[in-house]
Amino acid sequence: MYRTHNCGELNIKHCNYIVTLSGWVDSIRLMKNITFIDIRDFYGITQLLIPSIKKKIKKEYLIQIKGKVVKRKSPNYNINTGNIEVYVNKLKILNKSIKIPIDIKKEYSRNKVNLLKYRYLYLRNFNLKNNLIIKSKILNLIRNFFIKNNFIEIETPLLVKSTSEGARNFIVPYRKKKGYYYSLPQSPQTFKQLLMIGGIDKYYQIVKCFRDEDIRKDRQPEFTQLDFELSFINRKNIFNIIIKFIKYLLYKIHNIKFINIKILSYKYIIKKYYTDKPDLRFKIYEISKKYFKYYINSNYLNYKIYSLILPNYFNIIDINKYVIINLLKDQNNKVLIYNYKNSITNRLDKKVFKNINFIKNIIKKEFFSKKDLLLFLILNDNKNYKKLINKINNFLLRSKYLNNIYIPIIIYKFPLFKYRKGKFYSYHHPFTNPYNGKLINNINKIFADSYDLIINGIEIGSGSIRIDNYNMQKKIFNILGLSKNIIKKEFNYFLESLKFGTPPHGGMGIGIDRLILSLFNKKDIMDFIAFPKNYLNKDLMIKAPSKIIKI
Amino acid sequence: MYRTHNCGELNIKHCNYIVTLSGWVDSIRLMKNITFIDIRDFYGITQLLIPSIKKKIKKEYLIQIKGKVVKRKSPNYNINTGNIEVYVNKLKILNKSIKIPIDIKKEYSRNKVNLLKYRYLYLRNFNLKNNLIIKSKILNLIRNFFIKNNFIEIETPLLVKSTSEGARNFIVPYRKKKGYYYSLPQSPQTFKQLLMIGGIDKYYQIVKCFRDEDIRKDRQPEFTQLDFELSFINRKNIFNIIIKFIKYLLYKIHNIKFINIKILSYKYIIKKYYTDKPDLRFKIYEISKKYFKYYINSNYLNYKIYSLILPNYFNIIDINKYVIINLLKDQNNKVLIYNYKNSITNRLDKKVFKNINFIKNIIKKEFFSKKDLLLFLILNDNKNYKKLINKINNFLLRSKYLNNIYIPIIIYKFPLFKYRKGKFYSYHHPFTNPYNGKLINNINKIFADSYDLIINGIEIGSGSIRIDNYNMQKKIFNILGLSKNIIKKEFNYFLESLKFGTPPHGGMGIGIDRLILSLFNKKDIMDFIAFPKNYLNKDLMIKAPSKIIKI
Repeated sequence: MYRTHNCGELNIKHCNYIVTLSGWVDSIRLMKNITFIDIRDFYGITQLLIPSIKKKIKKEYLIQIKGKVVKRKSPNYNINTGNIEVYVNKLKILNKSIKIPIDIKKEYSRNKVNLLKYRYLYLRNFNLKNNLIIKSKILNLIRNFFIKNNFIEIETPLLVKSTSEGARNFIVPYRKKKGYYYSLPQSPQTFKQLLMIGGIDKYYQIVKCFRDEDIRKDRQPEFTQLDFELSFINRKNIFNIIIKFIKYLLYKIHNIKFINIKILSYKYIIKKYYTDKPDLRFKIYEISKKYFKYYINSNYLNYKIYSLILPNYFNIIDINKYVIINLLKDQNNKVLIYNYKNSITNRLDKKVFKNINFIKNIIKKEFFSKKDLLLFLILNDNKNYKKLINKINNFLLRSKYLNNIYIPIIIYKFPLFKYRKGKFYSYHHPFTNPYNGKLINNINKIFADSYDLIINGIEIGSGSIRIDNYNMQKKIFNILGLSKNIIKKEFNYFLESLKFGTPPHGGMGIGIDRLILSLFNKKDIMDFIAFPKNYLNKDLMIKAPSKIIKI
Repeated sequence: MYRTHNCGELNIKHCNYIVTLSGWVDSIRLMKNITFIDIRDFYGITQLLIPSIKKKIKKEYLIQIKGKVVKRKSPNYNINTGNIEVYVNKLKILNKSIKIPIDIKKEYSRNKVNLLKYRYLYLRNFNLKNNLIIKSKILNLIRNFFIKNNFIEIETPLLVKSTSEGARNFIVPYRKKKGYYYSLPQSPQTFKQLLMIGGIDKYYQIVKCFRDEDIRKDRQPEFTQLDFELSFINRKNIFNIIIKFIKYLLYKIHNIKFINIKILSYKYIIKKYYTDKPDLRFKIYEISKKYFKYYINSNYLNYKIYSLILPNYFNIIDINKYVIINLLKDQNNKVLIYNYKNSITNRLDKKVFKNINFIKNIIKKEFFSKKDLLLFLILNDNKNYKKLINKINNFLLRSKYLNNIYIPIIIYKFPLFKYRKGKFYSYHHPFTNPYNGKLINNINKIFADSYDLIINGIEIGSGSIRIDNYNMQKKIFNILGLSKNIIKKEFNYFLESLKFGTPPHGGMGIGIDRLILSLFNKKDIMDFIAFPKNYLNKDLMIKAPSKIIKI
């Protein structure tokens, strides 16, 4: 038996117990007659007191000890076992270690070569280990949600059809016939639709997907997707499931009981926030000039007007509004501040804003709510508004007040197509139903029955109500300019399947790693993947890809 | 709203409810003034009574109806909703269907082309649908077991290193550099060991694995594996987990509360049953001549002696022992039957067996237990014993008495190597620790710290205690004849990793589909896979593999 207890569980209750522990030497201090070792395993760290000098034992050696739990004279309140130590009378080296090439206590930058090469050692890093525990728990929460809601878990194949989207697909040669290939799926899209056609009512799966693109901070060539699909539903039914799901996660993970999930149209979002991934934890958006044009000095009438609102989870005492003002003023912007007591606190540009009482009333009536703390009214000369928004974002995203704030948005009614260089492309994918199921002549103005889920500015997932009609699907392929040959070779099985009583259906794909990033205010999905690839899609630890070795 | 209820939930309690149902036309009967339709969805079938003639509606049309639930005059006790029918006053065709090319009520042979081509339609088959529901439930049970037992779910990569085992690996070309490849993993073996080296104490995962081989009834090129690994454990600890796991599954699935899981050595198993996958629901094995040599006519002393034991879950009244006797006698075998009342019931070959009372005593003392029903003592002329065993197997495996009987066996202490054409190969895999951690000079006699799990003759999984020592791993690679170059290119990262205080660790891989087959007495894993490939590894539905389409 290698242990009676793990290295994270002993406390004052165990005093006088004779215990056996196994683990790695986290640190070692040689004193005059005694040696202190911190022994570490998956569960924690325990201090060992050895009544002799152990010069041969080094950091990261694997040891097994037997000894008596005793109360510690000077407790360490940072660890669970800090009240006790183990007075060792037997010590065995289970396995030696050469000097390890990275510091497992350090936080490295993501592309540090040794960090990826010795990833298995960096798994001993406290934060990375904890991230993996978090991910495991969240995967379990997600599955429990879908099982409770009567979804059936069904696996779809990973060796699938190679398609004309080739540039983004990894391909797999077929050994039995030269020139023939499988490809690895970007998503189980057509398979899950075929499950619906096959009468499976509610499907879900957590599944690996693949995309052969260069890596960014929120991308890996293989990634894990929560995928679900339902029949006999409409858009609202799916929104309700998404809302229930996000509320469930936020309750289970952060104990957040009340949350308002906004459902906003793409048109509204773009007009107001200039992005389809707004972070509404603070709001900066352009506002119409109609409100203020009479109260602004005529020299500034061609300026754009923005409002930046900090909600009341910011703290008026801690928030450094002067830093914000300086950021705002930096680029010739003119700024006015309205505070939580409904008064103008700073009128920084006296010559710019006039008739303050009217401005106050408009702000109060149109822009400020009881849940808001501060409003900055900004006049911008129209040149640097992107820089302006970036600067404010970067400053505010670092604020501790945002840590436990989650503002999920469902954005719906996206365009069905985007037009680029003489061709139409699907905005979502070619299986998306037009909004209300109808096409109109002006292709640019067709909307889609599709939707995105955004949490705190991160795109978590997207989905749509799918086409359930053979003729509609054919029309969409035609608008996309797919030749008869392509349709036949690539989508024939799918078009055919629409002839057999396809039910109305829709669903969604959610990126597991992005979901976790958004729920824990993190930036880099690498931090939640045990063995990630680098920005060239290489695994530096196992050295893949590589040449094929022939014996 | 497409439905107020599903097609499987209405019963006598719902009488007089006004309901909306959506589903497929399972059958249609036109009467004089009325039409009966059975409407079907994922959840069941409901009878509809329509007070008019609906000639235009065909089988598999998708319809939506509104009507009143009424008590049925002649109930159908075969279905949940058999007590009621819905008197329809509104009927809408949601989607038409052309005539479907397969009969979804029929059971087809596995390689029927249309069955695979129109797999999405065959998902409407009751049995296949139910199999997928079963699989989903079992996946959930498995995960719950490992989570309750504090295992962490960690994903390992699917784009991994191409190795010299090349012939069995699917490869994936790397786009950025010609001649470089990933491969798809046959198992997460080295990754899970690296997790242990990284200090992750208990890992599990349900993961896709890949093997580029021709398909058999229990194989697919992509298959799903339950994979787990633990540190600071020995063989016995792992056996305890396996036993706990199998008991848990049999209790949760079949409500079986007591089960005896046998732990037997490979040597014993092979000697007794001539196979390393014995089905102990009935036992046929050779027995030593020492017991009976004085009681057998000298003409038959060069015959082999077998015993076939039928345990008492067979029924003496129903079991047709004469069929068995005829099977046994068919090939010149001489047979004696000993029954549950401890008496010889048939002495079929009077001249062969002598001194029956002594034989009775030996059988009672050495071979027959209280749990047994019948014993057949068989003298075989040594030529056709394989045929003999096959015949009996084939006959008895069809017995209904075996349906709810599960005899799991853990077989341990396999040989470490097998010798073929001048070369040693790993019996399990090259990371398996020698039994008791020691090598001996006679390589043929080295045993492994490995184990298999067999349930009712099906190999469910295998595992081992792994090598945790750099020098031992190097020696094993040498015995396997791996060149320095291969070791360097293929396993360098792994050998290196053993230098950093590797913990003692071991684990197992269990084939999910085989596990399900064994738990439900089924033969073909295709029956539990939504979209399987055929015996040439082709997906006939989507037509993969295929040529790459260039636009």
